[in-house]
Amino acid sequence: MTKSPTDSQIIMTELVLPNDTNVFGNLMGGRLMYWMDIAAALCATKHCNAAVVTASVDNISFENPIVLGNAVHIEAKLSRAFTSSMEVHLRVWGENFLTRQRYKSNEAYYTFVALNENRKPSAVPGILPETEEEKALFDGALRRRQLRLVLGGKMKPEDAEELKALFMQARPGVRKTE
Amino acid sequence: MTKSPTDSQIIMTELVLPNDTNVFGNLMGGRLMYWMDIAAALCATKHCNAAVVTASVDNISFENPIVLGNAVHIEAKLSRAFTSSMEVHLRVWGENFLTRQRYKSNEAYYTFVALNENRKPSAVPGILPETEEEKALFDGALRRRQLRLVLGGKMKPEDAEELKALFMQARPGVRKTE
Amino acid sequence: MTKSPTDSQIIMTELVLPNDTNVFGNLMGGRLMYWMDIAAALCATKHCNAAVVTASVDNISFENPIVLGNAVHIEAKLSRAFTSSMEVHLRVWGENFLTRQRYKSNEAYYTFVALNENRKPSAVPGILPETEEEKALFDGALRRRQLRLVLGGKMKPEDAEELKALFMQARPGVRKTE
Amino acid sequence: MTKSPTDSQIIMTELVLPNDTNVFGNLMGGRLMYWMDIAAALCATKHCNAAVVTASVDNISFENPIVLGNAVHIEAKLSRAFTSSMEVHLRVWGENFLTRQRYKSNEAYYTFVALNENRKPSAVPGILPETEEEKALFDGALRRRQLRLVLGGKMKPEDAEELKALFMQARPGVRKTE
Amino acid sequence: MTKSPTDSQIIMTELVLPNDTNVFGNLMGGRLMYWMDIAAALCATKHCNAAVVTASVDNISFENPIVLGNAVHIEAKLSRAFTSSMEVHLRVWGENFLTRQRYKSNEAYYTFVALNENRKPSAVPGILPETEEEKALFDGALRRRQLRLVLGGKMKPEDAEELKALFMQARPGVRKTE
Amino acid sequence: MTKSPTDSQIIMTELVLPNDTNVFGNLMGGRLMYWMDIAAALCATKHCNAAVVTASVDNISFENPIVLGNAVHIEAKLSRAFTSSMEVHLRVWGENFLTRQRYKSNEAYYTFVALNENRKPSAVPGILPETEEEKALFDGALRRRQLRLVLGGKMKPEDAEELKALFMQARPGVRKTE
Repeated sequence: MTKSPTDSQIIMTELVLPNDTNVFGNLMGGRLMYWMDIAAALCATKHCNAAVVTASVDNISFENPIVLGNAVHIEAKLSRAFTSSMEVHLRVWGENFLTRQRYKSNEAYYTFVALNENRKPSAVPGILPETEEEKALFDGALRRRQLRLVLGGKMKPEDAEELKALFMQARPGVRKTE
Repeated sequence: MTKSPTDSQIIMTELVLPNDTNVFGNLMGGRLMYWMDIAAALCATKHCNAAVVTASVDNISFENPIVLGNAVHIEAKLSRAFTSSMEVHLRVWGENFLTRQRYKSNEAYYTFVALNENRKPSAVPGILPETEEEKALFDGALRRRQLRLVLGGKMKPEDAEELKALFMQARPGVRKTE
Repeated sequence: MTKSPTDSQIIMTELVLPNDTNVFGNLMGGRLMYWMDIAAALCATKHCNAAVVTASVDNISFENPIVLGNAVHIEAKLSRAFTSSMEVHLRVWGENFLTRQRYKSNEAYYTFVALNENRKPSAVPGILPETEEEKALFDGALRRRQLRLVLGGKMKPEDAEELKALFMQARPGVRKTE
Repeated sequence: MTKSPTDSQIIMTELVLPNDTNVFGNLMGGRLMYWMDIAAALCATKHCNAAVVTASVDNISFENPIVLGNAVHIEAKLSRAFTSSMEVHLRVWGENFLTRQRYKSNEAYYTFVALNENRKPSAVPGILPETEEEKALFDGALRRRQLRLVLGGKMKPEDAEELKALFMQARPGVRKTE
Repeated sequence: MTKSPTDSQIIMTELVLPNDTNVFGNLMGGRLMYWMDIAAALCATKHCNAAVVTASVDNISFENPIVLGNAVHIEAKLSRAFTSSMEVHLRVWGENFLTRQRYKSNEAYYTFVALNENRKPSAVPGILPETEEEKALFDGALRRRQLRLVLGGKMKPEDAEELKALFMQARPGVRKTE
Repeated sequence: MTKSPTDSQIIMTELVLPNDTNVFGNLMGGRLMYWMDIAAALCATKHCNAAVVTASVDNISFENPIVLGNAVHIEAKLSRAFTSSMEVHLRVWGENFLTRQRYKSNEAYYTFVALNENRKPSAVPGILPETEEEKALFDGALRRRQLRLVLGGKMKPEDAEELKALFMQARPGVRKTE
């Protein structure tokens, strides 16, 4: 059985309160990663209808700070399902409703493992990407997975075929889709 | 002026409380990343004596869950300083004081940018690694930085010399040092 | 200038954590009202592009308890704008992603006043309902406003024409639309 | 067995901290409703000596904002007990101890249902109002209950005798007592 | 100008939530001391109509644990005012509303200093104890103050006349009043 | 079996966030006592490998306020173990990483009781002080224990031999060691 990425999409909106901010009055990165983890975990749980735990978080770059009193928008959508793990793609924007300014904060991938009642990994349904964007996220998932395995010391760099291709010959078209 | 990594090391100990846990009674990944962000930010601030903001977080793999009521140990240490940014290496363990079991949770790199009063990037002091481990972290920082730039779309894969070497010829010795 | 109700709609998703629950392990009413207040305030702020403060909350009935570990969905949508105040309609569901059970928790109306920099009420844009449901919410807003004024001691019951009509002659059709 | 309203009265005092405030530095409505829910739930629990859950909250009007650093006083007192439900009357003041200024914030009614160990509604003791104010609150409870039932779609407007009388012929004396 | 202790009395009621508890499901001492600090600070602020800061906390013994879901009652009352400092006496009970069991948790003294806008100590009004209990608390305050000064290294033990008398000749009558 | 005080030492570092501060923007005493309780409890648990509950807290004097955005350093170390209780010595500093200013906040003693699964006091390992400072803390523990018992009404002042000696004849050498 396969599901659509939109079936399990989660939209979360939060308000930046004083205790969420650093000395500049901007949302702290750690507080944002906390909200992203909950949004992504809800998305993964909704997809597989099982309890999940965070397995890994890919590289996150914080582009624009989100200001005290602004809204935080988080969209979490499944990019690909593997045997018992799922990669969730997150997009985060800040929004100042007074100036109508909407700005990108960051984008990230969180990976979760589905667990059964005995806390053992359990199989998850597949996913069928529909839009062009969903397809690009789906395709890129293999490369990100190899990168995770290499960085986690579970795959040798020379065996990471997808990554090797990326570094040995520039493939800008593929790179741009993410 | 250069400083030693131990000058700015931060040790944080936390207790896993009910609200920090998922349905399995284990520490949620997002809550841990929140604490890690604060520990790493304190470390970077102590090194550069300036306010800092989180710029990026590298791939994090959660190895063992930390259980409700257990202690969380976080050690944050500067691995390398660049012009106005700093990479902080974090090590996280859980510990059950009743059974004396101490277990690794994860390891991660957070990168911060130092900002002056006008919120512009400001120069940070260099760092002089002393132990073998500090030197290995210092050396690996260039490779991780290239990876961050490639993943952030700010460097072409074919220009990432350090990474290319890694993927084109296996260098297990280097890999193991991290 | 008028806007559409969908322009300012806010969707919030939260996870029920241990500290949000009562002795039965269900979400406490007060915690839910807190989240609803934030979702509704963001919706009103987005509509009028000005800071807002909560003026009143209409009768709320809690239908089904939301369980620890379940998701809380809150949808906030402007039902009607008055001179400087706005009524926001909220719908709240709980969802158990493991059993795929989705259940209504409650429905409510929060009213906000827009304030300018001097903290004085400021004019807000009008709203143009589009769907049948939006039109019914828009129409019912007058009756709810009279009820608020009567309950707040700011209007005499005998002057509340909309309400009087409701109580003197049964109009089940109207009642059902809400 | 009947009890007196003073037997279960709850007095709660809180301090407005930064994270409780909106952009104006005033207590957010949602945070106040959270505290009111806990005070009222404690009052109802104390009256019936059983666990309770919030069933409904009547119209709340926020009159004066409570300022950061000021005290919040909440008094919760049972106004009337029905078969298995209880209506709690709440009065809320802010107080600035530096200027000795004490100001009303709002007044509200929260209704709770008593539950036994099997989570089924259980009978609650009756209440015997003593002061003039307690008697007026007791008398008004029937009218508020009809209003709740009508608003909740559980009673037809034309059957709400107490309310009909209110709207068809002005009875200012009764209205003023609340 | 003198005031009565009852003028500034603060009554705080809290509910023990999951995150406030230790592994035994009982209120953590630190969380209780946090609430006591706020109740006592509000009491001192109300007495002197100035901002205050916590100067010291006397020995606290925790007698009975307060259980998850129970109510916490804190009563804070000024015991004595000195030049610019005030000693607040706190009494704490737990209460299980289901079993009607009310039990003492602890008793403590918190001392505050009043500060003016320049953050300098400012004079506070005197206090006139009225009841027997208030008088005993007032009398004992001198002895506790000497003890604080001796423990803080600001008074030599041999100069602490009140304390010396206590240790050199048993005065059970005085001791019992506290 | 005896252990060394360093075996169970806990180092905690926290960041002062907006919600932790009073009107002066300084860390509230109660919030600090909360963190100290957790650090000390972890230390005691680590020493005895059993669950512990806070039994008492000795006199605490707050010397310098810790400022918003500064770091809080807490070091908790066992000073002495009794039959089933343990005294933990805490030292607290604030630190402003921008100005490199490090300042003492306070010093305190928290006492814990070890409990077995039946919630009964259980025996704890002894402790062997090594450094001069550890020995002084160990020696002073008896005197502090008598003071606790006298203040708690569990020992008559005239039986507190250690204390009597202190007040009847000045022993500055001993006093200075604390």
